[in-house]
Amino acid sequence: MHLGPDQPPLLVDAITAGGGRLTGLNDADAVVWTGAPSDFPTLPTQVRWVQLPSAGVESWFQSGVVDADSDRVWTSAAGAYADSVAEHALALLFAGVRALPGQLAATSWDQAGFGAQVRTLRGSLVAIVGCGGIGRALIPLLSAVGAHTLAVTRSGRPIPGAVETLPAERTAEVWGRAHHVVLGAPATGQTKYLLGASELAQMKSTAWVVNIARGSLIDTDALVEALTEGRIGGAALDVTEPEPLPDGHPLWTLPNAIITPHVANPPSALAPAFAQHVSDNVSRFARGQALAAIIDPASGY
Amino acid sequence: MHLGPDQPPLLVDAITAGGGRLTGLNDADAVVWTGAPSDFPTLPTQVRWVQLPSAGVESWFQSGVVDADSDRVWTSAAGAYADSVAEHALALLFAGVRALPGQLAATSWDQAGFGAQVRTLRGSLVAIVGCGGIGRALIPLLSAVGAHTLAVTRSGRPIPGAVETLPAERTAEVWGRAHHVVLGAPATGQTKYLLGASELAQMKSTAWVVNIARGSLIDTDALVEALTEGRIGGAALDVTEPEPLPDGHPLWTLPNAIITPHVANPPSALAPAFAQHVSDNVSRFARGQALAAIIDPASGY
Repeated sequence: MHLGPDQPPLLVDAITAGGGRLTGLNDADAVVWTGAPSDFPTLPTQVRWVQLPSAGVESWFQSGVVDADSDRVWTSAAGAYADSVAEHALALLFAGVRALPGQLAATSWDQAGFGAQVRTLRGSLVAIVGCGGIGRALIPLLSAVGAHTLAVTRSGRPIPGAVETLPAERTAEVWGRAHHVVLGAPATGQTKYLLGASELAQMKSTAWVVNIARGSLIDTDALVEALTEGRIGGAALDVTEPEPLPDGHPLWTLPNAIITPHVANPPSALAPAFAQHVSDNVSRFARGQALAAIIDPASGY
Repeated sequence: MHLGPDQPPLLVDAITAGGGRLTGLNDADAVVWTGAPSDFPTLPTQVRWVQLPSAGVESWFQSGVVDADSDRVWTSAAGAYADSVAEHALALLFAGVRALPGQLAATSWDQAGFGAQVRTLRGSLVAIVGCGGIGRALIPLLSAVGAHTLAVTRSGRPIPGAVETLPAERTAEVWGRAHHVVLGAPATGQTKYLLGASELAQMKSTAWVVNIARGSLIDTDALVEALTEGRIGGAALDVTEPEPLPDGHPLWTLPNAIITPHVANPPSALAPAFAQHVSDNVSRFARGQALAAIIDPASGY
């Protein structure tokens, strides 16, 4: 099993703990990759499994690293970071619903003004559009605060804990129904600009949209227009298009926009979570079990 | 049963739903009061129960309204607002731990800088000092995000869901142990300046303190000094001393302070929660059952 290009001790330990043995690339039957697509080596034919370090893998397809043709298995880190990202999503949703942007900027006590803006999540319906690993981790948090989840997945098979699960082709129904929307879908051709002008127009005037997935899910120009006109409650974005968001972009200063610079899964949480994922997958590989987070070249994630 | 000085339809309905019948004050065996201590009437002797509208009742003692001598029963709204206040406490704790003050003020993409500041609540130990109704409502929310609760109560009797419960006389142990601290104690002589310079000095350098109870629990000058010197992570305060916090106070502009102007239980959540509480207590009164949130004149809450 080859670990490269870096060999952080946490991952060396994770591979050993999973029952793996480190080798050079030419002797490896599996590769755990810690670098970028641009550094990816040409693989010897005997490599049967590659573990990539990121949860979203569109750049690994675009760069041609993931080969759809061989019977090699590719796994992402999807799900490994779900807990931290779900926590960030709830923190952002709370920040919006509890009117924190205005209160953090205030320099005077305005109980009547902010009291009229602060809302509760209790009893509200939160749509999770693209309810994968992050969405599944978010549902119990929403349930704990008394909110209900309306899940949207590709298949529409019922997600545990959601009050209702819709298939992707019925996504249009959720914009007007949900009190708030969390976007958790992968970046594919089908999900590009999932939330655009017509979807924003259907959302409730107090609704917040939280994006912790990929910037391409939102038509940024349409969002800026909706926020400028105050047509929805607000938007809290950990991912943007373009990303990084350039200096001077209107989203930086709109009072109903919250930007966090792709930090839902910060370094302090990332390394241990990826190590745990690698250890689990190495152990499964050694025992011939199905790996977690297998990439489907046909669907692109 | 008398309702006064205002008679909002929501409360008229709540009393009727609880099995009560509205009368004038002179014919009442019970009073549901919606006003301030300063408007409180002299009670006819046959009034056996008074329901006050607030959760914290120190002003009702200070004004001499609550009579310790009679065998009349007084109830507060303690617990009625617990869900909304617990939600606010979690929103404030998340805002601190996820470094939202700095990110909301930012106008440039700084993934490395904020990525180093963002933390997770997962696995952390959160002390709830004064773990009453709000604390009990907060514990399942903390559990859902993978945080552990260290509860402090007067008696120290184990609180369900807390990993440990300490009696008030052992409060000194929590400041250094907890990753974060939520203050939920009532305002009494014993709890004044519960968190002062020496307690702040024991807290972890990344710890956030959240106060959703009463401003008098914190020595504000000592807190400002600790925040100015960056000795703790930060403070998120829904209540302050003095309150309202005056314009120009350093807490308004310290980058590691979050002020919300006593809006943890906003009007949109308050009225229905109080109505439910009244309905429940009227029903209990009618059936001769023990009332909820009975005030103990000896302890002052």
